Amino acid sequence: MVKLSLDAAFSALADPTRRAILARLALGETSVTELAKPFAMSLPAVSKHLKVLERAGLIARSRAAQWRPCRIEPAALKDIDEWLGYYRRFFDESLGRLDDYLKKLQANERGTKDGNDDDKK
Amino acid sequence: MVKLSLDAAFSALADPTRRAILARLALGETSVTELAKPFAMSLPAVSKHLKVLERAGLIARSRAAQWRPCRIEPAALKDIDEWLGYYRRFFDESLGRLDDYLKKLQANERGTKDGNDDDKK
Repeated sequence: MVKLSLDAAFSALADPTRRAILARLALGETSVTELAKPFAMSLPAVSKHLKVLERAGLIARSRAAQWRPCRIEPAALKDIDEWLGYYRRFFDESLGRLDDYLKKLQANERGTKDGNDDDKK
Repeated sequence: MVKLSLDAAFSALADPTRRAILARLALGETSVTELAKPFAMSLPAVSKHLKVLERAGLIARSRAAQWRPCRIEPAALKDIDEWLGYYRRFFDESLGRLDDYLKKLQANERGTKDGNDDDKK
């Protein structure tokens, strides 16, 4: 099992070819030869990109079949999604509004706290 | 307005110090001097990281106040979230199950299509 890190995942995704490979794999698992076809690059160059993606935990290569198909590996994508979760209220408008609403509630709560202590028993 | 790119955003986020700066800014806007305090690095080194984050559209610096506070800029984070959306079914189990269910529905639809044409008029 590869140890995942956000450093490796973000670094791997900073390259447009590697994101294009991932987009192709979203359609289904495939061989390196198939993957290389739409790109104007050699098979070894594609293999190098695949190794970066594999080390970052973004793809996995089957060892069962002789043609060693590549597929998307969800673990690192999930890690990024969780990381992004901390920042969602900054760009998700509905969450932003919820945040404002909760802050307003808290402010009101603070204002009327003395009278509401009975509710908490 | 800086032109945003996923390359720049992912590349900026591949560094743990820059992610830590972003985590600090999630608590509220602050000055470069304040930001630098918890890090064992010089002010120019922190400024360099801020420039990378700013160019990637991940933070913005106010030009109004003389102390030029930094704050999180949502645009690039939102772009990453949208990009991630294409892959969500690979790591979101509930979406994965929905995907399986829709595929099953489509397969059934194909199997009974000839008998159901009346429903479509």
